[in-house]
Amino acid sequence: MMHGDTAARMTPQAFQALIDEALPLCALFGIRCEHIGYGRARLRMRFDPAQTRPGGTVAGPAQMAIADATLYAVVLGMIGPVELAVTTSLNINFLRKPPAADIIAEGRILKLGQRLAVGEVLLYSDGVAEPVAHVSGTYSIPPR
Amino acid sequence: MMHGDTAARMTPQAFQALIDEALPLCALFGIRCEHIGYGRARLRMRFDPAQTRPGGTVAGPAQMAIADATLYAVVLGMIGPVELAVTTSLNINFLRKPPAADIIAEGRILKLGQRLAVGEVLLYSDGVAEPVAHVSGTYSIPPR
Amino acid sequence: MMHGDTAARMTPQAFQALIDEALPLCALFGIRCEHIGYGRARLRMRFDPAQTRPGGTVAGPAQMAIADATLYAVVLGMIGPVELAVTTSLNINFLRKPPAADIIAEGRILKLGQRLAVGEVLLYSDGVAEPVAHVSGTYSIPPR
Amino acid sequence: MMHGDTAARMTPQAFQALIDEALPLCALFGIRCEHIGYGRARLRMRFDPAQTRPGGTVAGPAQMAIADATLYAVVLGMIGPVELAVTTSLNINFLRKPPAADIIAEGRILKLGQRLAVGEVLLYSDGVAEPVAHVSGTYSIPPR
Repeated sequence: MMHGDTAARMTPQAFQALIDEALPLCALFGIRCEHIGYGRARLRMRFDPAQTRPGGTVAGPAQMAIADATLYAVVLGMIGPVELAVTTSLNINFLRKPPAADIIAEGRILKLGQRLAVGEVLLYSDGVAEPVAHVSGTYSIPPR
Repeated sequence: MMHGDTAARMTPQAFQALIDEALPLCALFGIRCEHIGYGRARLRMRFDPAQTRPGGTVAGPAQMAIADATLYAVVLGMIGPVELAVTTSLNINFLRKPPAADIIAEGRILKLGQRLAVGEVLLYSDGVAEPVAHVSGTYSIPPR
Repeated sequence: MMHGDTAARMTPQAFQALIDEALPLCALFGIRCEHIGYGRARLRMRFDPAQTRPGGTVAGPAQMAIADATLYAVVLGMIGPVELAVTTSLNINFLRKPPAADIIAEGRILKLGQRLAVGEVLLYSDGVAEPVAHVSGTYSIPPR
Repeated sequence: MMHGDTAARMTPQAFQALIDEALPLCALFGIRCEHIGYGRARLRMRFDPAQTRPGGTVAGPAQMAIADATLYAVVLGMIGPVELAVTTSLNINFLRKPPAADIIAEGRILKLGQRLAVGEVLLYSDGVAEPVAHVSGTYSIPPR
């Protein structure tokens, strides 16, 4: 959006290495970072039957996990690899029961302030046009 | 609270059997139901280094997972074992970084309507008086 | 977005008449409906010094009022003039202090289900590119 | 709760004078501060037919206004009269349609940090035991 002309301050590869090291749940859930732009990020969570609910869907907490990681990617893509940035709140609305497929998360920044960042994430089931969940969240960021 | 004199419609044992069968993430995270009353429930998640972030804390998505399961216990304790009840929204405020210890979730109903239930959950680190997170959430419940 | 080719089921004029009659706060806050499409709506709230906080901004509750009305317009634009649709939840993140100017609300549907609708609204200060607040909300809709 | 033995740093009278001066919507909605303790506050909004929806209830945005003012009272009761504290987010779940009566808001702190405060508010219709709405919110507080 308004940030398209600024370079991201972290590559997907560097972000992946950081979460592989620091956030074991991302490895557990098969979460991969596909793209980081300045103010934007896209992550993918591979479908894993171990996370399903009855009916072959994707468990809510796994959806929250990829949304949280996506907001982290959006924020670190703007401020660089600051491990001390922490989620302070997250709000999720579940929209549709996702089928047995990968989840793709598209995140973007709404505001990067001195101390607080706010972003939103839309979650999609791979191959389906309408989102399965909407998430907004806030990150506390250390003084820079 | 106002529901203390009514019997719960599901035992902790029956709820545990249901989630062990239907919600694989609960087993993965070591989530156990300790108590269900009418309009109340308490669950515990054992501390597991595999969920930690740097610094020996409990990952946010694991906190969301026990909160979601606790709301489910609160709702099923009032309407009985209705698997089709589904979370429609969840809002979490992270209050304090939990230390390396079990998480205890205390949930209660705020409203049980014909179609929608609303509840709140406070998460505690075992042995610490002040809560580590506050969660409110809504459940869609099928016609009864 | 995906709903662009379907006609709205309520005109801005009819929606304005409904809220002028049914929601006195909208008249109090000078809220006008400018556009309704199928799954989208835009409303405007004229700047009124009587709503300010110190520093010439727009009070938070006034921002919530226009967001709520905008979600109502989005929903009624899809289901027609059903007065019994009611807000069940609303989540707002305040992003920037709006200056002394009109607020423009751009709302869109995220999901229209049988019983629940979910939408989001971005609030802008007239003439400023970046949003001042982000809102997501849910509406309970009566059986149709 | 845990803060019962500490004195509040602002009286209800001083808080009322502050909001009468700084928040015109509070006067408009007839919001009065009845009590401030350290970490707690109670406010009342007199019923006013000008705020009603069809059916003699209290408009959602008026409920949000008293909840927001109550969180402000909770925070200022702990840090003193710091006008620069600002709401950063607010989440409301509407539980029951309030009848034509005063609204009483009971707020309490969940966490007072260096930069962020989190609190919750239950709204009641005067004379009814069950809450009509639940609110959680966050305040950004300036360095002290």
